[in-house]
Amino acid sequence: MNELKVLFHINESSRWQMVLINITNFLNDVGQNNANVEVVINGEAVSIFKNKCQQAESGSLCNVSTNLSLLEQMEKLSEVGVKFTACRNALKAQLIDEESIPDFVRVVPAGITEIVRKQAEGYAYIKP
Amino acid sequence: MNELKVLFHINESSRWQMVLINITNFLNDVGQNNANVEVVINGEAVSIFKNKCQQAESGSLCNVSTNLSLLEQMEKLSEVGVKFTACRNALKAQLIDEESIPDFVRVVPAGITEIVRKQAEGYAYIKP
Amino acid sequence: MNELKVLFHINESSRWQMVLINITNFLNDVGQNNANVEVVINGEAVSIFKNKCQQAESGSLCNVSTNLSLLEQMEKLSEVGVKFTACRNALKAQLIDEESIPDFVRVVPAGITEIVRKQAEGYAYIKP
Repeated sequence: MNELKVLFHINESSRWQMVLINITNFLNDVGQNNANVEVVINGEAVSIFKNKCQQAESGSLCNVSTNLSLLEQMEKLSEVGVKFTACRNALKAQLIDEESIPDFVRVVPAGITEIVRKQAEGYAYIKP
Repeated sequence: MNELKVLFHINESSRWQMVLINITNFLNDVGQNNANVEVVINGEAVSIFKNKCQQAESGSLCNVSTNLSLLEQMEKLSEVGVKFTACRNALKAQLIDEESIPDFVRVVPAGITEIVRKQAEGYAYIKP
Repeated sequence: MNELKVLFHINESSRWQMVLINITNFLNDVGQNNANVEVVINGEAVSIFKNKCQQAESGSLCNVSTNLSLLEQMEKLSEVGVKFTACRNALKAQLIDEESIPDFVRVVPAGITEIVRKQAEGYAYIKP
């Protein structure tokens, strides 16, 4: 069987759990070796990478335990081949230091360009 | 003219009316015989299939008349060839008995897989 | 390099700023001459074209300055080649006179048809 190629797009933090559940169910259904999955993260959704101090400074609710749980789920998915790609423009807009984000996340100059190129390569697009 | 192939993705109940209006306007524009339309339903959007008792038990607002109206619109669209496909994972998560959903709705193991396969077959993807 | 073809879909007014930032970042990244960008506007998002009087009559908050700013950004993008396409069904539903919308916006009978056709022509789909 050819590999199924899928790009998930997330730009709102509230959709993180849905994205991760969708990927998990998909991989359980088709088998990890039959799928090529990438998640492109832009807009406000990159705020998952804000650390405790940054969140406190910005006055936002410091929901560290939730973020940790989501980040742990992301890391487990990355270990079975799921790629996570963050938009540099979005990180800058959210004042997030690129050096502080997890190693399994790749940063690209513009998330939209990544989404366009992947679709041109035959990836399906899904916006959970 | 070749058939236009379209997959609509819905994962939030609040988008049901928009999805059904989009499909109706599209079919009016291109003609029912020139289009191949499928709706993949996952996430919380499958709750449209909750019956009165289930809704009461779960404590949610029992908006049966709204659901009935939407279900009637869906059934009419199914009669002109629109396919409705629900995700089994989502039905389980919402505690909805598969046997209780309308006959015109097909259930698949994972809605995301269906979306990926259809795009690979040349279906356009739309998230209303 | 071949032109990168992208269709942005907007159907909620709250997403306008995100759409325009996405397009600007994308064009800055790949260069205006290397991209073919179209924005299809349907659903409630066409309300950006409501004029002051219409907004007052309909009792909605008359946020003219915000709309003007967004419309100015749209016009600047149109001057570098970005195409804006509005859905006639949506304009009618929002009681917006087609003659009153900016000249750089093209009107089509059904926005969904435009989205389907463009994807069939190889455009990537993005829903910001």
